[in-house]
Amino acid sequence: MIRNEVFSCFVFYAVLLVVKMYVIAIITGQVRLRKKAFANPEDALRHGGLQFYREDPYVERCRRAHQNDLENILPFLFLGAVYSLIGPSLSVARFHFLVFFICRVLHSVAYLWPLEPPTRSLAYVVAQIPCFSMALQILVSVAAYA
Amino acid sequence: MIRNEVFSCFVFYAVLLVVKMYVIAIITGQVRLRKKAFANPEDALRHGGLQFYREDPYVERCRRAHQNDLENILPFLFLGAVYSLIGPSLSVARFHFLVFFICRVLHSVAYLWPLEPPTRSLAYVVAQIPCFSMALQILVSVAAYA
Amino acid sequence: MIRNEVFSCFVFYAVLLVVKMYVIAIITGQVRLRKKAFANPEDALRHGGLQFYREDPYVERCRRAHQNDLENILPFLFLGAVYSLIGPSLSVARFHFLVFFICRVLHSVAYLWPLEPPTRSLAYVVAQIPCFSMALQILVSVAAYA
Repeated sequence: MIRNEVFSCFVFYAVLLVVKMYVIAIITGQVRLRKKAFANPEDALRHGGLQFYREDPYVERCRRAHQNDLENILPFLFLGAVYSLIGPSLSVARFHFLVFFICRVLHSVAYLWPLEPPTRSLAYVVAQIPCFSMALQILVSVAAYA
Repeated sequence: MIRNEVFSCFVFYAVLLVVKMYVIAIITGQVRLRKKAFANPEDALRHGGLQFYREDPYVERCRRAHQNDLENILPFLFLGAVYSLIGPSLSVARFHFLVFFICRVLHSVAYLWPLEPPTRSLAYVVAQIPCFSMALQILVSVAAYA
Repeated sequence: MIRNEVFSCFVFYAVLLVVKMYVIAIITGQVRLRKKAFANPEDALRHGGLQFYREDPYVERCRRAHQNDLENILPFLFLGAVYSLIGPSLSVARFHFLVFFICRVLHSVAYLWPLEPPTRSLAYVVAQIPCFSMALQILVSVAAYA
């Protein structure tokens, strides 16, 4: 499987996106420490007092960016893996993965910076196109087994 | 792998469920636009003003439906794939996938409509049964390698 | 694939972690019933009245524990599966899986109990180490196919 070129190409971009998600988690933690805004009373107490058990708008922004990744990158990990197994051409498959990868990196930058709308929404929508395309191709290829 | 009948059957229902999750995200976005309730100040400004940077009960309902999908459909994508590899009979496996699929579609309908309780909770509980069954069968089949 | 020893070892711990996530969902539901704190008005009405359509600090704690699992255990399901395919030695791979498994169980206990900080944060950070290690090894092994 790992010797399947398309699968390896998919894995490369997929793992980079997982690392990108981890980076957002790290940023969220750093912002919590810097802004002193903790989700748990015991964390607030450890960092100065219960008054820091509070929400912060930028922490919430980081969390929305992370949540959007969960909603989109995690299903991609599944769709891309299965799509790699149905025998697409390497160039077409790489194009799907690259479009998704670039748009999701742009989505994170547009969310956290933040960039002028509708950059973020556009990145989200364009990233969905390869996902719907892969979903459709997979469904066609396995429909006989339903 | 894609020539494994059970795996292909699993993939069919799994991909439909991923598409179902995408549909909930699309509905959430449409409700945000129609009710003018945005999660980010820059989105609100673009659609009429900061007063629309606010929560809406139906948007929150959509988000809870989506969150419940993340908590249940995403683990199914893993359990179902691995379960397909441990050699279950096609008919038993298809029954697992179908029960999960039907219950999760019903769960979304029951959440968004919303249908009378306890329809939604019942759909959630019944969908968990094939998941626990698959988890148990997988554990038994690989326990020797722990 | 299921006859691959490393993959089977990974599957064992991965499925246990999925079951652990389900247990947190079950605990959340039980706490909602016991504390009478429901996320939906129709659920509150069914259990005594709209006054129980409310948040509860311990329910929110359970939800944060679950959310952190989604952010960390779900990517592990992908990283661990792919890592198993790139041919690591069984003992090194098992060490990666075990460290992640133990730390994530400890993370849940530390969150729900709750244990004294920084137990929970430490469990989170140490669990990330095998994940970054697997991500790096995978990237090196497939980089030629990017």
